[in-house]
Amino acid sequence: MTPYFLGIDGGGTSCRAALADGSGTVIGRGRSGASNILTDPDTALKHIVEASELAFQEAGISPQLTSTFAILGLAGNNVGDAVNYVKARLPFAGADIVSDGMIALQGAIGDEDGTIGIVGTGTVYILRHKGRLRSIAGWGFHVSDLGSGARLGQMALQECLLAYDRIHPMTGLSQTILAEFGGRPETVVEFARLAKPGEFGRYTPRVFEFAGRGDEVALRILKTGAVGIDEALDAVEAITGGNGKLCLLGGLAPLYPPFLAERHRLRLSDPLADALTGAVALALKTYGAAVEVEA
Amino acid sequence: MTPYFLGIDGGGTSCRAALADGSGTVIGRGRSGASNILTDPDTALKHIVEASELAFQEAGISPQLTSTFAILGLAGNNVGDAVNYVKARLPFAGADIVSDGMIALQGAIGDEDGTIGIVGTGTVYILRHKGRLRSIAGWGFHVSDLGSGARLGQMALQECLLAYDRIHPMTGLSQTILAEFGGRPETVVEFARLAKPGEFGRYTPRVFEFAGRGDEVALRILKTGAVGIDEALDAVEAITGGNGKLCLLGGLAPLYPPFLAERHRLRLSDPLADALTGAVALALKTYGAAVEVEA
Repeated sequence: MTPYFLGIDGGGTSCRAALADGSGTVIGRGRSGASNILTDPDTALKHIVEASELAFQEAGISPQLTSTFAILGLAGNNVGDAVNYVKARLPFAGADIVSDGMIALQGAIGDEDGTIGIVGTGTVYILRHKGRLRSIAGWGFHVSDLGSGARLGQMALQECLLAYDRIHPMTGLSQTILAEFGGRPETVVEFARLAKPGEFGRYTPRVFEFAGRGDEVALRILKTGAVGIDEALDAVEAITGGNGKLCLLGGLAPLYPPFLAERHRLRLSDPLADALTGAVALALKTYGAAVEVEA
Repeated sequence: MTPYFLGIDGGGTSCRAALADGSGTVIGRGRSGASNILTDPDTALKHIVEASELAFQEAGISPQLTSTFAILGLAGNNVGDAVNYVKARLPFAGADIVSDGMIALQGAIGDEDGTIGIVGTGTVYILRHKGRLRSIAGWGFHVSDLGSGARLGQMALQECLLAYDRIHPMTGLSQTILAEFGGRPETVVEFARLAKPGEFGRYTPRVFEFAGRGDEVALRILKTGAVGIDEALDAVEAITGGNGKLCLLGGLAPLYPPFLAERHRLRLSDPLADALTGAVALALKTYGAAVEVEA
């Protein structure tokens, strides 16, 4: 029976799978719906299986999950109960659930030492130093995630109100966002009171857009955000000694570099591959040798 | 029938009443429980009546609410439905519900032009300029209230996590607060995810305490908070032209001045009287002349 190796990259909106043969060549891919093991583990399981079977289909092979070894990178992997529940119900020959950050790190920097900074709705820094993995920051919107899309968006809304009260200047950014709320500060407040991090983050593309045109308030917001990222990267580099690759990933990764300190900007490089590729590589690394010995 | 004048200062924790005769002399005071007209209007009504009757008792007069004219300063006064509900059920000869800020302004600066900055769990600035009232900032914790107790407390928790990750120094402040959470950043995050503004504000006295000892992180937090207040006061003074009294009220009022810009610090003066006294004065101002004419 030929062994197959599967990488899964699952999150709140979708679940992607990549299937490789014993040589590590990707032979098929599949995609299905949300796979949040915390909020809905049964649906997550269903979508994991669905994405895996689609990957087999694309490879032109009938699904053979029981001879497949998988690494699943899933958000929420640090909550033991959810992980145990899902792990016990996976149909694979062998499988492990790791963090979404870990497969992203493997994809971006491969087997070497190095660091990824994920700058999206949240911010978190994951590094491998002398073979040991560490995570820095990333404690969430309320008291962490400095420089994240959610925090930048929140600052943009705050600036609308400061401009309304003539505490800060009413620039194009504040005017545009305030207009979306009908020019009513009460509506901004009502929205912000219940907004989830991702909803604050919706205003962040505007911040970069207006900063590009020299908008004073947008530039101030990005300066604050960039300081948050620069300081976290300083803490990272104090550990790594500035060795290894340094990659930014996530939705804001292409936008942030011009605003970061030169000492970090000059260190940045492109990721080698994406998180899904990292998951496939980890599946081969974890199970490949054992399978070979058995064979 | 002798007319009486009553001031009420009501909020989320208590309801205070002061009773005056036609000359404006306070002859009795009363205090009862919470009077939040938004969350529990019926209990608020009960406590308003209770505090009023206690004020009559202290004056040695049997309660005569139907010949009493009252001004009630209540938080939540800007929500029409709640105000109408409570107003329709008040037992007084005449009564109006105004903001807690308006009675505080009246108490602090009397009938002249001037400004109060209420710096407590939230922050809001209320000014009377050429007789016209205005309110600045005070849009709440999520996207406003810069420099407030809630925001300072939130920053203190944020600093704990930054120190834990060695992004910022671990000073006495961060160490003390982190220790209260068992040294576990996860516990800080769990708390912050659900904390109400007042719960964040519980950590704020520590910030001032450690700042007094030169704690670097505490001083940085207060510097950020003070900029928020200084900028709001600049917007206030742009309207007033720097004329009239400028008073700070609220829990942080005694603590903040050393950290504020000199241009504001030198302008500060003590309030003439408290909010309850302001409510009594407004009751006399609003209803005194009319009652005299009738008599």
